[in-house]
Amino acid sequence: MTNKKNFNKNVKNEDLEVKALFLGPKSENREYFKKTLDFLMDEHIFWRRDFHPEDKELLNSFDKTKKGFIHTLDKSTDVLLDMSSKLKESSDPWFSERYLGHMNSDTLMIANLAYMATILYNPNNVSYESSVATSQMEIDVGEDLALMLGYDPNKSWGHITCDGTLANYESVWLARNLKSFPLAVKKIYPDLVGDMDEWKLLNLPVGDILDLISKIVEEDEFDFEKVRMESARGIGAYDGKLGVLLVPQTKHYSWVKAVDILGLGQKNLIEIPVDNDYHMDLNILKNIIDEKIANKIPILGLVGVVGTTEEGAIDKLNEIVSIREEYSKKGINFYLHWDAAYGGYSRSLYLDNENDFMNFDYFVEKVFLSGAFLNDIKYPSRELYESYKAMPEADSMTVDPHKMGYIPYAAGGIVIKDKRILDLVSYEAAYVFGNSEDNADLLGNSIMEGSKSGAAAAAVWASHRAIPLNISGYGQIVGRSIEAARILTEKIKDINTLKIDNKEFLVEPLCLEPDFNIVCLAFNEKDNDDLKKMNDLNMEFYNKSSFVSGRMFSNDWITSHTVLSVDDYGDAPVSFIKRLGISKDEWDKNKSVTVVRLCTLNPFLSHEEDLDELWTKYIDIWKEKIKEIASQK
Amino acid sequence: MTNKKNFNKNVKNEDLEVKALFLGPKSENREYFKKTLDFLMDEHIFWRRDFHPEDKELLNSFDKTKKGFIHTLDKSTDVLLDMSSKLKESSDPWFSERYLGHMNSDTLMIANLAYMATILYNPNNVSYESSVATSQMEIDVGEDLALMLGYDPNKSWGHITCDGTLANYESVWLARNLKSFPLAVKKIYPDLVGDMDEWKLLNLPVGDILDLISKIVEEDEFDFEKVRMESARGIGAYDGKLGVLLVPQTKHYSWVKAVDILGLGQKNLIEIPVDNDYHMDLNILKNIIDEKIANKIPILGLVGVVGTTEEGAIDKLNEIVSIREEYSKKGINFYLHWDAAYGGYSRSLYLDNENDFMNFDYFVEKVFLSGAFLNDIKYPSRELYESYKAMPEADSMTVDPHKMGYIPYAAGGIVIKDKRILDLVSYEAAYVFGNSEDNADLLGNSIMEGSKSGAAAAAVWASHRAIPLNISGYGQIVGRSIEAARILTEKIKDINTLKIDNKEFLVEPLCLEPDFNIVCLAFNEKDNDDLKKMNDLNMEFYNKSSFVSGRMFSNDWITSHTVLSVDDYGDAPVSFIKRLGISKDEWDKNKSVTVVRLCTLNPFLSHEEDLDELWTKYIDIWKEKIKEIASQK
Repeated sequence: MTNKKNFNKNVKNEDLEVKALFLGPKSENREYFKKTLDFLMDEHIFWRRDFHPEDKELLNSFDKTKKGFIHTLDKSTDVLLDMSSKLKESSDPWFSERYLGHMNSDTLMIANLAYMATILYNPNNVSYESSVATSQMEIDVGEDLALMLGYDPNKSWGHITCDGTLANYESVWLARNLKSFPLAVKKIYPDLVGDMDEWKLLNLPVGDILDLISKIVEEDEFDFEKVRMESARGIGAYDGKLGVLLVPQTKHYSWVKAVDILGLGQKNLIEIPVDNDYHMDLNILKNIIDEKIANKIPILGLVGVVGTTEEGAIDKLNEIVSIREEYSKKGINFYLHWDAAYGGYSRSLYLDNENDFMNFDYFVEKVFLSGAFLNDIKYPSRELYESYKAMPEADSMTVDPHKMGYIPYAAGGIVIKDKRILDLVSYEAAYVFGNSEDNADLLGNSIMEGSKSGAAAAAVWASHRAIPLNISGYGQIVGRSIEAARILTEKIKDINTLKIDNKEFLVEPLCLEPDFNIVCLAFNEKDNDDLKKMNDLNMEFYNKSSFVSGRMFSNDWITSHTVLSVDDYGDAPVSFIKRLGISKDEWDKNKSVTVVRLCTLNPFLSHEEDLDELWTKYIDIWKEKIKEIASQK
Repeated sequence: MTNKKNFNKNVKNEDLEVKALFLGPKSENREYFKKTLDFLMDEHIFWRRDFHPEDKELLNSFDKTKKGFIHTLDKSTDVLLDMSSKLKESSDPWFSERYLGHMNSDTLMIANLAYMATILYNPNNVSYESSVATSQMEIDVGEDLALMLGYDPNKSWGHITCDGTLANYESVWLARNLKSFPLAVKKIYPDLVGDMDEWKLLNLPVGDILDLISKIVEEDEFDFEKVRMESARGIGAYDGKLGVLLVPQTKHYSWVKAVDILGLGQKNLIEIPVDNDYHMDLNILKNIIDEKIANKIPILGLVGVVGTTEEGAIDKLNEIVSIREEYSKKGINFYLHWDAAYGGYSRSLYLDNENDFMNFDYFVEKVFLSGAFLNDIKYPSRELYESYKAMPEADSMTVDPHKMGYIPYAAGGIVIKDKRILDLVSYEAAYVFGNSEDNADLLGNSIMEGSKSGAAAAAVWASHRAIPLNISGYGQIVGRSIEAARILTEKIKDINTLKIDNKEFLVEPLCLEPDFNIVCLAFNEKDNDDLKKMNDLNMEFYNKSSFVSGRMFSNDWITSHTVLSVDDYGDAPVSFIKRLGISKDEWDKNKSVTVVRLCTLNPFLSHEEDLDELWTKYIDIWKEKIKEIASQK
């Protein structure tokens, strides 16, 4: 990698205090927040006044006294108060230690301020002309993300999407058009691909296809537009000929939608079963690849997940990369994408202040010294470390600022390893890649969206400038989040039983050592061997800890839940339910287990001075809820 | 239509003052804006403090004195000031009468306030659990839009998309899966479609297919999931078998991307030439349909445009509807969509205070009486009126709040006439449509996106509540915009020549009677018959009136431009260039004309007390710019 220190270089910051980054659970930073917002609003207000001060005012004082004028403002106020009431009545208290549910938390104060300030300028980042400042910010953010994820920022390209789902679609769009490209070359310029047969063309390495693109784009004798009109872009999704997309069973449901939308068909999405730790089972993966090859079905692409939405599991990326290499040697090649929508930002923890990926021994020491962890947890396993290290091997990755970037919605993202691939989807053919302004033009030329908020880009940009994407910045936030999940898991494991009146309840974590920051758990009454009864208890526990049971504002503790079914997970959950006293027979009978799901994004839990006190509070609330449920029967 | 008065009923407002709706070109409403924002921020700040007041503070006063804490806040401030500088340096002054370029203007104050207030609650509208308030707001907005566009809000369904491009994709997704559905039925339950052959199945009316869906969903003997897995959803885009998508040449480029992304292939997108008024040429349309039918190529769908992005042209929708009916009688059926991303909101002008579509004579009178127009313009032609009237005949429409809804980015939208079609794209099959909460669940189940900002929904919702989607509300804003385009056009037509030093320059509007609110124009030196020279002049005029020539803040007048080429427009521009003294031969030689493009969204132009003074100012600035260009040669 070259030049990486030239990117995002002005963000080094060794004195980051995480408590100064959020408005806070009690709006502790309200003074700073309001003062800064007020200033930014004045910046805009006076900017308007300073644009041709000689132009006349729209209103005079008399206009403001007219009935219609007053009525219109009053009406606006009434509507806004009504809206505010609705928001306050039912919004989730993401900011509180009492919220441990979905992948939400307080968001960064700087991101909110930047977002609000930029809304008034209303830039549209697909049109450079309408967003000179924020288009450049989006390009900068793409480079930040590329660097964090281990790509060469000079060769790669990234941008903000409206969400991770769209980023996933975009990766399939790229993979699909790439896979079809050699067939198109064969049709228009057969000499370029020699005597390769269709199977060989459908199995060219990604790098070889990119070189083909470059050749056709750059050499005058070729007509690139003509070729790409014979790719999937021009003639459609090739009716299954392009092969299958492989995803783990733990995939986000956007992948199921992606193959529908991209015209590949859901029958061409193959879900690879997971092992007992909710990682893609790599032996089964190989078996499935072998079987497809034997039937002459190409592998269009393979997706690994960095942070599954239900378990926070991180696939064994380094092993997946090895498998890809192994098959490449046999002439079988496919596109590789990581769905790191959720987990992508956690790679910041592994980068030193110079944005270099740390070696294992140094990292294990540094992660504590840096203050990212305060407690004595074992992290990471060597396996997990190797997965993070292998991330840059994929052809593209989804990474969402509005998840672990602590940015408000909507800001997803995608980073692409080699931007030459953009020619396969760009509106104008054969784009010449030059300077940053050209890169900004790509936003209008090579993405799925047709209008996009520059305010979202400004929010991410400002956050990345204030908080480096390494261990001294985001690592400090992400680290706390990972630590909290580890600590919670250990504390749950330490519980023998919860004694509630004359009954005893078991509680077990789904994963004994979470890869990331989600803790799923289930309660079961001791000696109950009925899975349906256990599921009912946990469902009711969730109901009592969510909007289902009424106003969240009056709830003591709020969480989310998920259901792991045999259709989606095979028998992976069996070892978990056994720990709760439920047999495999019950699993075969009921076919699913309901679990309570806690995403620990809140960056203040693990650094609580009185962690034990907090934990005691949780336990008391849980017992109270279970007691209520038990008494209703 | 039933019950329409029950929707959005609390918004009646006869005393709307448009000047009270915007921050204003000189921030005239800054006091209201800041006061209300401050209040809304406090609402949130104290809401946090009121959630379990017994929980402890994260920070004490001492914490705030620590070096890291101060440093982190200072760093945030520095970054935000840097961001603010960048925004101020290069943002477009949308708010000013001196900006007449892209489809931008000042945005509604209430929308900005609602957006900002909601960001802090950070709801995600694909998860009802995470957005109880704002999901309902999005459903309300869908109903508002349906009502404005003439659909039955009880049968239709609409939602906010990240932009109009995604809404267009969504319509193709629906149309594609719908078109393939009868083939899937034939495969699984052949008895349901009797002895229909493939051609007949590919030509079933949309309503018949929807009835088939209902039957299979509702009757226990059928397995809907099995059928839809044989539709395009399951097996892919059918390799061209589903036919062609017809769009006018004036289409937005998202349609070119749509057929690529949806796996249909760009070769299956047929662009229908336009007539001299930039409307889809309906004779050619019929010829193309006839030709496709003769070749047994089905028509997948037809798109009409309500407000082309370059000319603001509105296709002759009622005639398109007649053509669809005509072919339906011959057994040829296809999906019909209006791309009303830009023009959709202008239908509000045609609705009376009870949201009824007015009859022609009443409307022509009412539009002046209401105050929507203040000047004596001829609007609308009967043809244009009939187009608006025919809007509800389409199967779906794109309509973007972030365009003529005067909402900040990002808020596109789609409305679908019959929500039964959602079963073809929903994640979970055979959805039961019930109450509003179910409709809110649809947001997570039946759209392309996977996370979406509830703040955008709140912004649109609040705006719609304060400003009715009829002549007494949005009609007042849209009306001013249309009026401005008409007045500008007349004024340009009235110019004989612009005398600049010893030279004379012609100026002509592209459209002599704009359908909507875009005025394209070109200058030409008198007696110049060289198209290239004319194009250079207009390009240079644009350069001098845009970011190209440096800081926009120091520019007197800012605009946009577009290039109409023979590839995209055929010979439609010839009558225009002839008015400027350029021959058809020159057109054939140069193949494109560069025009200056003025979108007149600014709601204050046409209501200027001193319209003539403003006009004189424009002319003076234009002359000055042309003089500079002439002197550089």
